[in-house]
Amino acid sequence: MTDNIVREGDNILIYALKGKSWLVKAQHGAKLHTHLGIIELSNLIGREYGEILKTTLAAEVAILRPNIVDYVMKSARSTQIVYPKDIGFIVMETGLCPGASVVEAGTGSGVLTTALASFVRPNGHIYSYEIRAEFVEVARRNLARAGVEEWVTIKNKDASLGFDEKEVDVAIVDVGDPCTLAEPAYNALKGSGSFAAILPTVNQAEKLNSTLRSLGFVNIHTVELMLRKMEVREGMTRPSTRMVAHTAYLMFARKTSAKKEALHVSQ
Amino acid sequence: MTDNIVREGDNILIYALKGKSWLVKAQHGAKLHTHLGIIELSNLIGREYGEILKTTLAAEVAILRPNIVDYVMKSARSTQIVYPKDIGFIVMETGLCPGASVVEAGTGSGVLTTALASFVRPNGHIYSYEIRAEFVEVARRNLARAGVEEWVTIKNKDASLGFDEKEVDVAIVDVGDPCTLAEPAYNALKGSGSFAAILPTVNQAEKLNSTLRSLGFVNIHTVELMLRKMEVREGMTRPSTRMVAHTAYLMFARKTSAKKEALHVSQ
Amino acid sequence: MTDNIVREGDNILIYALKGKSWLVKAQHGAKLHTHLGIIELSNLIGREYGEILKTTLAAEVAILRPNIVDYVMKSARSTQIVYPKDIGFIVMETGLCPGASVVEAGTGSGVLTTALASFVRPNGHIYSYEIRAEFVEVARRNLARAGVEEWVTIKNKDASLGFDEKEVDVAIVDVGDPCTLAEPAYNALKGSGSFAAILPTVNQAEKLNSTLRSLGFVNIHTVELMLRKMEVREGMTRPSTRMVAHTAYLMFARKTSAKKEALHVSQ
Amino acid sequence: MTDNIVREGDNILIYALKGKSWLVKAQHGAKLHTHLGIIELSNLIGREYGEILKTTLAAEVAILRPNIVDYVMKSARSTQIVYPKDIGFIVMETGLCPGASVVEAGTGSGVLTTALASFVRPNGHIYSYEIRAEFVEVARRNLARAGVEEWVTIKNKDASLGFDEKEVDVAIVDVGDPCTLAEPAYNALKGSGSFAAILPTVNQAEKLNSTLRSLGFVNIHTVELMLRKMEVREGMTRPSTRMVAHTAYLMFARKTSAKKEALHVSQ
Repeated sequence: MTDNIVREGDNILIYALKGKSWLVKAQHGAKLHTHLGIIELSNLIGREYGEILKTTLAAEVAILRPNIVDYVMKSARSTQIVYPKDIGFIVMETGLCPGASVVEAGTGSGVLTTALASFVRPNGHIYSYEIRAEFVEVARRNLARAGVEEWVTIKNKDASLGFDEKEVDVAIVDVGDPCTLAEPAYNALKGSGSFAAILPTVNQAEKLNSTLRSLGFVNIHTVELMLRKMEVREGMTRPSTRMVAHTAYLMFARKTSAKKEALHVSQ
Repeated sequence: MTDNIVREGDNILIYALKGKSWLVKAQHGAKLHTHLGIIELSNLIGREYGEILKTTLAAEVAILRPNIVDYVMKSARSTQIVYPKDIGFIVMETGLCPGASVVEAGTGSGVLTTALASFVRPNGHIYSYEIRAEFVEVARRNLARAGVEEWVTIKNKDASLGFDEKEVDVAIVDVGDPCTLAEPAYNALKGSGSFAAILPTVNQAEKLNSTLRSLGFVNIHTVELMLRKMEVREGMTRPSTRMVAHTAYLMFARKTSAKKEALHVSQ
Repeated sequence: MTDNIVREGDNILIYALKGKSWLVKAQHGAKLHTHLGIIELSNLIGREYGEILKTTLAAEVAILRPNIVDYVMKSARSTQIVYPKDIGFIVMETGLCPGASVVEAGTGSGVLTTALASFVRPNGHIYSYEIRAEFVEVARRNLARAGVEEWVTIKNKDASLGFDEKEVDVAIVDVGDPCTLAEPAYNALKGSGSFAAILPTVNQAEKLNSTLRSLGFVNIHTVELMLRKMEVREGMTRPSTRMVAHTAYLMFARKTSAKKEALHVSQ
Repeated sequence: MTDNIVREGDNILIYALKGKSWLVKAQHGAKLHTHLGIIELSNLIGREYGEILKTTLAAEVAILRPNIVDYVMKSARSTQIVYPKDIGFIVMETGLCPGASVVEAGTGSGVLTTALASFVRPNGHIYSYEIRAEFVEVARRNLARAGVEEWVTIKNKDASLGFDEKEVDVAIVDVGDPCTLAEPAYNALKGSGSFAAILPTVNQAEKLNSTLRSLGFVNIHTVELMLRKMEVREGMTRPSTRMVAHTAYLMFARKTSAKKEALHVSQ
């Protein structure tokens, strides 16, 4: 498409061959100081992506183009992040894709928002609600760094009072008290639209499940995903010793008119 | 965006409130026969998405717009499918997104291809290689039904002899002997591009890991995802009794020039 | 110790080399009919344990001595069984061992009771309470078949009204409403004694946890165990495709006087 | 049985109500120094098990009788320990119980040995082989502290050259190269006896599986157990955030004459 050369101002994932990585900007006058040595960031400009550099301590590092997952994992975090395993499954289950219109509550530090925005490009949009003013700026910076701010409108409003948007494709809820968002999400969604919620506790899942059912959502289902890393080594392969055991339960549903109107008889 | 009305020819997910679903086409003269009764598919035309109908046996069903995940789960399968949990994670980890150019081997019944195509719209493209001619037609039909054939070129060729494409963003391998695809994938990728492989056995993971390392891939990592459903019921919540214990190991890597050229010294 | 020869009346685990097994008695005049052919059970008498026989259809079967786990898995089940993974962990966590005195509620079909009895021999005893008379007979037969009835007293009484026994080492609760057993268990246990409960739902765990805390139990902790089988085959090793995703949560605690009396000051 | 009073020389588990614990001996002149204050260990003598004391800093601690699992978790460890979840399952699957004769290789720091010994009392015995002399002393001390040395014979010998014992009930292998122990274990076991191995890597499982099959073992099966802790709190219940993802694969088998002699025809 375009050439594969680092330009001034590009975000770069410096990946040390020993496994550590840093998200930096290719620019004049800046340096990355690491325990593996120093890298002049101006030296990145003009290199090809995928090239290997050496630090001042002769450690080898690769120049990688950051993926959305790298922005997710390197975001400034004021809140608990949503993990890539969960984001990927939310995207699949909700049918979120290029062109989709999405409402989200709450924005938090914008990590999930960043990922969602990357998938609705170039014609979709994320309307993200955050009641805590102090997070809005954090989220804006994270979105801007990932280059997806154009596809997101952050509103410093209380979504439990209602989303401004109507007939959206997808509604995503990641707040402390998700039940208060169920009816606003129902009202914002188009018929057949997809709902998803990120729920740390079993109790939230119980309450939200009942609320969704009472509103006319169908195909309500709840899952958890466990990700286990493998230590792959010739003749010594085994799962990693430790893992994250729990991030969140994920609840999904589809909006219907099941509770709103008389049922039609198909004949 | 547009109105939310079923038109003739639309694909519809008929979702029975008891949990079963069928993927059908809204058209004149056809009927869906189920154990819950019959639905005249012409009756769907003109309804709003999200509406509830009754079958001839008075069972309630919802008219849902199929998401990509519904096409994935309802595909004509001549081969083992890739599960949504794995597709979502592959999309996240590879940075596959709107505009991406992707090579895939092999196509199989086109289930993964369908999902990938939905995410690269409207400017990206999937070049999918399948050596077994009999699968090519199955895959084409699955892609066409999901409406994403425009973003996919299926080639009835042996990708282990090399991909025709160069400088692609993502290479995905889902074949019986993935090691034979490692070098072709390396050659097709642009520097810093993302590689992913779907591997049923530990032994494939061991071999592919060594091969990737020898070629200059970095950030090689392997995971498995376990999805557990929850039975959420007021006062009686528990995980489901049974689950799919294993689908595949997923291996990821990034292309670099680590093994190809002299290392540059950053100063 | 003794010779290793099958005697008339011995229980035998007939293990077909293809993986299926049957628990039978070595006796004259009886036959085992299977899809792999017929075995005259009188033919077992005088054989050595571990020998291989052929059925009338020439299928090979091994003569194995049943372990407790075989009685557990082959029990006549009128109720949900407790799985070996859970039994083993209960035994470890409670310190149940030879010589222990144990109260249990309820007996159910006696499967867990059978296993517990095998571990307290030869000087310990299980006092098992079951309110439903129809289970008592089932449990007695299962205990007798496993040869452990001598170490068990089954009482057709409601343990929620109190256990007759005092100063026992271990109390185990496996009933629908475990909270009603918390105080009876506390009263039956000696100071520092171990409590265990088998809980299918999260809600039971929440309620029991609070109840135990209010009574003066300490080290209250709750776990779940997931068992995954591996398909081990040269060059094709992978986890099994399906698994049991959930059997029960296991809750453990130790009795103390924390809520009963003034605290002593150590000086 | 006996009264429930702490005597001089008893091992005590001091359990702080905040969750930390220490394994100490009730004796004159010694003190336990902790971040929660100091406890005079002579003060324990004459107390009842289950009583609550206060430290010099007024922190409350319970006087608990150590279970075998406490000795396991508090052992002096020169080697990787076997986890309680795995020990419990090994005990269940092998049928190890009071009276059993068991061979084990290797002893390591004697943690697994300690637990096994507790279950074979009062008539069984563990013959445990350890090639590394430096571990033998560690193991002896751990066994003595748990009070089970009477039921264990540790041999500083190489079990791969053969166990001295014959016709044992159970053989357990926990060494770096388990394949070398397969034939010695076969020769030591009585017909129908149970074999178990603790295997960190997939590759060991593959090799051992083939070896066991070639020797005439049957019912060879391999599992892994994952233990997840629950955070149980009224209205906020969720799994713990982190867990041990992998300890070991466990392989089990039963000895038969399948490869040793002509097959008998049952008629």
